[in-house]
Amino acid sequence: MQQIIDFILELDKLKGVTRKTRPLGLDRQENSAEHSWQIAMLAASLAPYAPRPVDINRVIGMLLVHDIGEIDTGDTIVYATEGWEERKAAELVAVTRIFSLLPDAQATQFMVLWQEFEDGNSDEARFAHAADRAMPVLLNLANNGQSWRENGISHDRVIARIAPPIKAGCPALWDYLEAELARAQALGYFDPI
Amino acid sequence: MQQIIDFILELDKLKGVTRKTRPLGLDRQENSAEHSWQIAMLAASLAPYAPRPVDINRVIGMLLVHDIGEIDTGDTIVYATEGWEERKAAELVAVTRIFSLLPDAQATQFMVLWQEFEDGNSDEARFAHAADRAMPVLLNLANNGQSWRENGISHDRVIARIAPPIKAGCPALWDYLEAELARAQALGYFDPI
Repeated sequence: MQQIIDFILELDKLKGVTRKTRPLGLDRQENSAEHSWQIAMLAASLAPYAPRPVDINRVIGMLLVHDIGEIDTGDTIVYATEGWEERKAAELVAVTRIFSLLPDAQATQFMVLWQEFEDGNSDEARFAHAADRAMPVLLNLANNGQSWRENGISHDRVIARIAPPIKAGCPALWDYLEAELARAQALGYFDPI
Repeated sequence: MQQIIDFILELDKLKGVTRKTRPLGLDRQENSAEHSWQIAMLAASLAPYAPRPVDINRVIGMLLVHDIGEIDTGDTIVYATEGWEERKAAELVAVTRIFSLLPDAQATQFMVLWQEFEDGNSDEARFAHAADRAMPVLLNLANNGQSWRENGISHDRVIARIAPPIKAGCPALWDYLEAELARAQALGYFDPI
């Protein structure tokens, strides 16, 4: 039992890992713990739009654990162009450390989910990636492009980075976003501040 | 698709609902979105300690949706002595409004989970309640009794409020907490500031 308590208190640190996006109407950056909750809810809501039937519980499990490595590495904006491989290696070291706080059975269960998400080769992992990539886009679309404008992210860069995973994981969601992103560009949501 | 997007953006407001507990090491109050993520992880980790086998995915689903009504009502500390019934009625109105943003199938699915948690009559709901009640206790135990001391909550009040649901939902967790709470009392974690 003490191992589980030590693990869950270690997870508390994810509440202090900040992302570039701001919650709507709040004057602070989003953190990776609340983001993980929101994308689990997005995936659960979107399940009927999965291109093939998915085990939605497995998708939710992946989304709940996928950012835990950021406790040691911090969050990197998805539009970063360099250092991606190094960051992924560092996250593996991090989750190995954090999951090993747990008894072996739970550690293995979470590591399998984390690795499946990283590998991105199952229908469930692809659907999970679509939810994870779409969420900050949805917030930016509702927020006049706040984090795009603050970080100098162009429309082309967004498309290049998010179209492939979202098309692969949830084509119906991509159709929606493609139209919205064109509208956002016309509205100046990608204009540098 | 637009209904799902409207719902998930409405959920963003849960990031702004603050609780009495502070995340460890952070100078701010915890919000109900990050709390929902953490208790889902706690339940998943604790599953081998369920007194009878539970559908852990159902437990996780309940925990992800159980606080959504607070978007309209705000959070009330679990040790509040009055107004509990009125608050629960207001939360039902709130989740009815919020879930109805979704297509019927998803709205019904989430409402069933929310109601099962509220009713507390299934093994899954009892286990979910144990995780929900235990989490702020675990944070307080790791935080010198921060929210107990700030809000004048006594050791007896904590025991009275959390022992029955945690004993019922996860007896092994209660055995752990009972010993830790006695230790905390000796250390002054319930002394008013």
